[in-house]
Amino acid sequence: MFGAPFDGTVSFRPGARFAPEEIRKDSWGLETYSPYQDDDLESYRLSDAGDLELPFGNTEKALDMIESRVRSIVKDGKIPFMVGGEHLVSYPAVKALRERHQELCVVHFDAHADLRDDYLGESLSHATVMRRVWEIVGDGSIYQYGIRSGLREEFEWAQKHTFLRKFSLERFSRDLAEIGERPVYMSVDLDVLDPSAFPGTGTPEPGGISFAELLDAVVSACGLNVVGADVVELSPHYDHSGISTAAACKTIREMSISILRKK
Amino acid sequence: MFGAPFDGTVSFRPGARFAPEEIRKDSWGLETYSPYQDDDLESYRLSDAGDLELPFGNTEKALDMIESRVRSIVKDGKIPFMVGGEHLVSYPAVKALRERHQELCVVHFDAHADLRDDYLGESLSHATVMRRVWEIVGDGSIYQYGIRSGLREEFEWAQKHTFLRKFSLERFSRDLAEIGERPVYMSVDLDVLDPSAFPGTGTPEPGGISFAELLDAVVSACGLNVVGADVVELSPHYDHSGISTAAACKTIREMSISILRKK
Amino acid sequence: MFGAPFDGTVSFRPGARFAPEEIRKDSWGLETYSPYQDDDLESYRLSDAGDLELPFGNTEKALDMIESRVRSIVKDGKIPFMVGGEHLVSYPAVKALRERHQELCVVHFDAHADLRDDYLGESLSHATVMRRVWEIVGDGSIYQYGIRSGLREEFEWAQKHTFLRKFSLERFSRDLAEIGERPVYMSVDLDVLDPSAFPGTGTPEPGGISFAELLDAVVSACGLNVVGADVVELSPHYDHSGISTAAACKTIREMSISILRKK
Amino acid sequence: MFGAPFDGTVSFRPGARFAPEEIRKDSWGLETYSPYQDDDLESYRLSDAGDLELPFGNTEKALDMIESRVRSIVKDGKIPFMVGGEHLVSYPAVKALRERHQELCVVHFDAHADLRDDYLGESLSHATVMRRVWEIVGDGSIYQYGIRSGLREEFEWAQKHTFLRKFSLERFSRDLAEIGERPVYMSVDLDVLDPSAFPGTGTPEPGGISFAELLDAVVSACGLNVVGADVVELSPHYDHSGISTAAACKTIREMSISILRKK
Amino acid sequence: MFGAPFDGTVSFRPGARFAPEEIRKDSWGLETYSPYQDDDLESYRLSDAGDLELPFGNTEKALDMIESRVRSIVKDGKIPFMVGGEHLVSYPAVKALRERHQELCVVHFDAHADLRDDYLGESLSHATVMRRVWEIVGDGSIYQYGIRSGLREEFEWAQKHTFLRKFSLERFSRDLAEIGERPVYMSVDLDVLDPSAFPGTGTPEPGGISFAELLDAVVSACGLNVVGADVVELSPHYDHSGISTAAACKTIREMSISILRKK
Amino acid sequence: MFGAPFDGTVSFRPGARFAPEEIRKDSWGLETYSPYQDDDLESYRLSDAGDLELPFGNTEKALDMIESRVRSIVKDGKIPFMVGGEHLVSYPAVKALRERHQELCVVHFDAHADLRDDYLGESLSHATVMRRVWEIVGDGSIYQYGIRSGLREEFEWAQKHTFLRKFSLERFSRDLAEIGERPVYMSVDLDVLDPSAFPGTGTPEPGGISFAELLDAVVSACGLNVVGADVVELSPHYDHSGISTAAACKTIREMSISILRKK
Repeated sequence: MFGAPFDGTVSFRPGARFAPEEIRKDSWGLETYSPYQDDDLESYRLSDAGDLELPFGNTEKALDMIESRVRSIVKDGKIPFMVGGEHLVSYPAVKALRERHQELCVVHFDAHADLRDDYLGESLSHATVMRRVWEIVGDGSIYQYGIRSGLREEFEWAQKHTFLRKFSLERFSRDLAEIGERPVYMSVDLDVLDPSAFPGTGTPEPGGISFAELLDAVVSACGLNVVGADVVELSPHYDHSGISTAAACKTIREMSISILRKK
Repeated sequence: MFGAPFDGTVSFRPGARFAPEEIRKDSWGLETYSPYQDDDLESYRLSDAGDLELPFGNTEKALDMIESRVRSIVKDGKIPFMVGGEHLVSYPAVKALRERHQELCVVHFDAHADLRDDYLGESLSHATVMRRVWEIVGDGSIYQYGIRSGLREEFEWAQKHTFLRKFSLERFSRDLAEIGERPVYMSVDLDVLDPSAFPGTGTPEPGGISFAELLDAVVSACGLNVVGADVVELSPHYDHSGISTAAACKTIREMSISILRKK
Repeated sequence: MFGAPFDGTVSFRPGARFAPEEIRKDSWGLETYSPYQDDDLESYRLSDAGDLELPFGNTEKALDMIESRVRSIVKDGKIPFMVGGEHLVSYPAVKALRERHQELCVVHFDAHADLRDDYLGESLSHATVMRRVWEIVGDGSIYQYGIRSGLREEFEWAQKHTFLRKFSLERFSRDLAEIGERPVYMSVDLDVLDPSAFPGTGTPEPGGISFAELLDAVVSACGLNVVGADVVELSPHYDHSGISTAAACKTIREMSISILRKK
Repeated sequence: MFGAPFDGTVSFRPGARFAPEEIRKDSWGLETYSPYQDDDLESYRLSDAGDLELPFGNTEKALDMIESRVRSIVKDGKIPFMVGGEHLVSYPAVKALRERHQELCVVHFDAHADLRDDYLGESLSHATVMRRVWEIVGDGSIYQYGIRSGLREEFEWAQKHTFLRKFSLERFSRDLAEIGERPVYMSVDLDVLDPSAFPGTGTPEPGGISFAELLDAVVSACGLNVVGADVVELSPHYDHSGISTAAACKTIREMSISILRKK
Repeated sequence: MFGAPFDGTVSFRPGARFAPEEIRKDSWGLETYSPYQDDDLESYRLSDAGDLELPFGNTEKALDMIESRVRSIVKDGKIPFMVGGEHLVSYPAVKALRERHQELCVVHFDAHADLRDDYLGESLSHATVMRRVWEIVGDGSIYQYGIRSGLREEFEWAQKHTFLRKFSLERFSRDLAEIGERPVYMSVDLDVLDPSAFPGTGTPEPGGISFAELLDAVVSACGLNVVGADVVELSPHYDHSGISTAAACKTIREMSISILRKK
Repeated sequence: MFGAPFDGTVSFRPGARFAPEEIRKDSWGLETYSPYQDDDLESYRLSDAGDLELPFGNTEKALDMIESRVRSIVKDGKIPFMVGGEHLVSYPAVKALRERHQELCVVHFDAHADLRDDYLGESLSHATVMRRVWEIVGDGSIYQYGIRSGLREEFEWAQKHTFLRKFSLERFSRDLAEIGERPVYMSVDLDVLDPSAFPGTGTPEPGGISFAELLDAVVSACGLNVVGADVVELSPHYDHSGISTAAACKTIREMSISILRKK
């Protein structure tokens, strides 16, 4: 596990940079035992490699540093688990993992399709990240859930290139069977949650899934052959009550237990 | 579309006056494309007539100005869509529309019955607005959904004069059939939503409907013969996370597309 | 009804001390009529005995004062209804009630098991309160609902000593039948609610029940032979929108009506 | 002392209606002893007559109710001390006091001149209150301090009709001597303070006086022949830290002691 | 006047991007008349060219766009007045102005020296901006006031290359005489103010100057031969009370009047 | 340096427990170089011993743990610098230091006298701490500055037992000379600052000293023979802007440099 506190391309409300720090701070208040999986995080070896010190205002350099870090974790035979930061951080992670895993596919939870080709003229952006990821993993390798916002063009483009499931997790278990033993990168943009459960994010989109639904899904998905994962887009300063950070911590705990127990 | 930033009779927490401004500000962050209706707001002609400059502290004059504005929009052959402000702004809008449409009925989403005869001695109040509207449209012409707060007298009075559906939207589709081709004024008090989805309002009432339920309902209702509509009671300063404004923006987008495509 | 503004053992975020005051302040905005039960609180005699003036920093003395107050209310032939404060305040209340009711059982709604034997070396703590209560009422007398956080040891211990129902209210109606006419102490830790509906609490735990579910349950449970009750763990300063206080007020109204009408 | 929770004509940020309630709530945390005057409020008879229940949305009726209340306090031989609410509440108070005291003059602390003849077409407004007061007390009877905002016309008009002292309290002690034994109405709009010391107000104006300066001035001024006083324009919801309410409470304590000891 | 909503290199708390929007929104509540200068902004021709649409995550492109805009304003014979955004936006403005004015000097108000050669490896950063500016204007051309934070190296470097006045404005009027008729670029980083008067900024530094001191200074400085100016580092989301935005609006009004009347 | 995150006896607004954590988090944003003293904290050996894990709800045990910690630091030949927590933490620190230094005197900055004999029946309280300290160090050994709140009895008692300087720091330099080489414990309750500069505290008292005045004073005072020090009563959750934490960090930096350079 490591933090990638980067939010340089966020267009609306920045602040995802504060997520790793807040998650560390609040996680002491969280039990390590999961009644959902009847298992305890303390039974496993989870190493926290701290946060990357990313430069502000230099997107390419920041992405390079993330890519190197992921590559070195993979080299050590470990599974990288990245805490964002904004969603663009998934791109270098996928890049590094693809070198090792030719069949890599991506399971993606999000409110937004993130499939634009460019955003305000920039090709590297939180709003283009899954398009960039597609350039690496190719057609039929991205499974998207909970999507409820995007341009008409993104939804049309998705019909040919990704498995985009609108609004809900309805098709989720059927897809799991299809994925089978392919190596999987799990990318959880927490704004897939309804803003009532997760107000602390850059671009809240009403009409999302509940925390219980997300929990079920990520625990199941982590039973796949997960080779890397991230949890992104917590922007804690927009939620003074702290419930968004609590939701992030618990999601990370459940995903970690599920991934580690599978090994 | 125009804004009516009035909150002069609010008894608990004022601030609905800020809603039109915040909605305009945030709507740039919202896609115009609706994946729910697979349609784009940009395909239609929606004109934004700006906000009325209402006097502070003079309720009658403010209501007169709203009434004139609605009357002049109707005269231009357009459909008035008003963004409140508090709920009392619906009263002059219904008044102006009734002149043109003798069979006018009102579809009303709200947590509160708003059927008092007076409130603290005042007959013009956010808590009496549907009673005043009844004086215009008469018995059997007001359909109320999601109501979960009021005096015992209001619930009893409603049994004789309006179709008050408590708590949920259960009877909603059956009612739609009954309304048929009658001209409809849609009035959406956003506090019909559960406060978890919509904390930014004057009088939050726990136990409301979800955003998904509201979306379904307003999209269906807009398939009726809608001749006017409003969305009221967003009080953005009470929600620092901004999820309430996001919910308002999206409700307005979906209602606008649905009304305009029907034409 | 009386307030017990104590939060001396809270480890994470204090502030439950402000709950009684905020609940009194906001309750003027709440109708006394319940459309859920079609009954009005004004039909009953509910006396508000004000808040206890508890010493800060002296846990034992504070608990003694609560115990005396409950004992004296019971002596007057009334039903004590306590507004916390943190959860530890339930302990002296149960103690005083047990003297009178040998068969006393406890119906407990909470996100946390609260069954530790000690917490940071202290035996009197919000995290140990149900263990202390068990020492008074014994095996088979505590029914716990909505529990989704605790040590592995707490869940294991519960299997032998309490009826701990994880996550939901599924087994609730079956349990009600079993309880029958036993005297009941109802303890509602409001953090049993999902944090989206109740962000204003010390330790928010995502994945809770909805307000509608809680309302149904407490209204049903109050149909039992309730001899005492409390509502605890509102920490209003962590929720600027005020929806948590609104949820607390409404829960108290519905419980009061239900308990009083049963008499 | 009584509260006048009215903010019906506020154009920018409403909320002064909450001031009396918050001031009562916080005043328990304030010592009654003043080290500034070495005197204790408990030595005097200050009676709190509670808050007026003013109608929302009906400005004239609200002002009439305030006028009656002040008149009846004066009739009882007491000195009215009103806690606003917005600044317009001073107008009916002056009206009632002028009947008794023909030589009445007004000592006015404020950031704004409040001398417009009308505001957005309304003659009764927080921005016109001192013009209305002038219509009652006439030329040479209003002393204004700390004024740093207004139209050019207001400043020009003031040169002929009031003693308007810009920015500071420089001329204050000289003016006191001039006022001598004339009966005085003291009106303290707390936004005369710098927003750093008093952020919780409708229209913050940077560049104001310090709390220490205000304290000195109001204590001196209360040594005059004060026959009525008010403290207005605290809007507590705009200051989560509570320092504005604390400043209001302390200003009221010092003014009360100073007025009462003079008797 | 135009807005440059850029905050891409901010290391601590981002959000200066929201400043131009908030300043426009709040300026309707501000009188155009200045009692300080007894002059009215409406007497002058101030044209608002709106905000630049800057790309997120691409620092160099954003700076280029600002430079072009300033160059084109200068070409039109107007004085550019830029509203930031973070402090780095001053760099391209100075660059464009230096082409026209060989003798350009910079008057700089700030809490921070901003003289680092690089920051976290980046040469373009809010913490290096005055070093970059120095590379353009050379020794003896930067006057810095209110500086109270920096590395030891920055203060030492300043002794040879700039006129750095620590903490206060003491030497200010003497410096004004020295500058005489040189063309001046005024750069006001609002964090020069004490955080009590200006909490809404990325890196608050206690011990700053008061609003009255800043106002005096900028009005005097604008009597120089000002050929360009900026006001930067308002981060409005960190100040819910809005006093920081009010301070920014008033500073801009006073600077604008002073610069325009000099022409 | 170590943290004592205790706020168990706070009567009004708790939260000082969060201070050590927030101070550590924010101090990365603060330069180690002091332009005030032209010296760098990095030149000295300041060891951070982390935070004590104090039990919640058991005041005596918490105080014992602090006392032991201070005793062991003194034994190691180091100077204890404690970051509170509420003010009661000073009591065990003084107790431990007095054993070693018979002539110990206390220099105390505060808004409140803290000289009550008991508070709500408790003798150990933040409101009695200096009375308890007096029981250890005796008459003529406590110098109090900035005091502006207390009971009449506290001010009278102080005239015989401590050197209580009301409101300001006027007598401060004269007192320094008098103290001479006596061993000094410095206790800085940050609420001595005006609430505009330090809103984030339990009991804000308007009319305090400025940050610049405090800085001057603590730097001078640290030139004495300081054998222990604390900085207490930051309650960061009551100040969302973060300026209070920034003020605390800078006070600690300046005190540390001054104390360490004296050695």
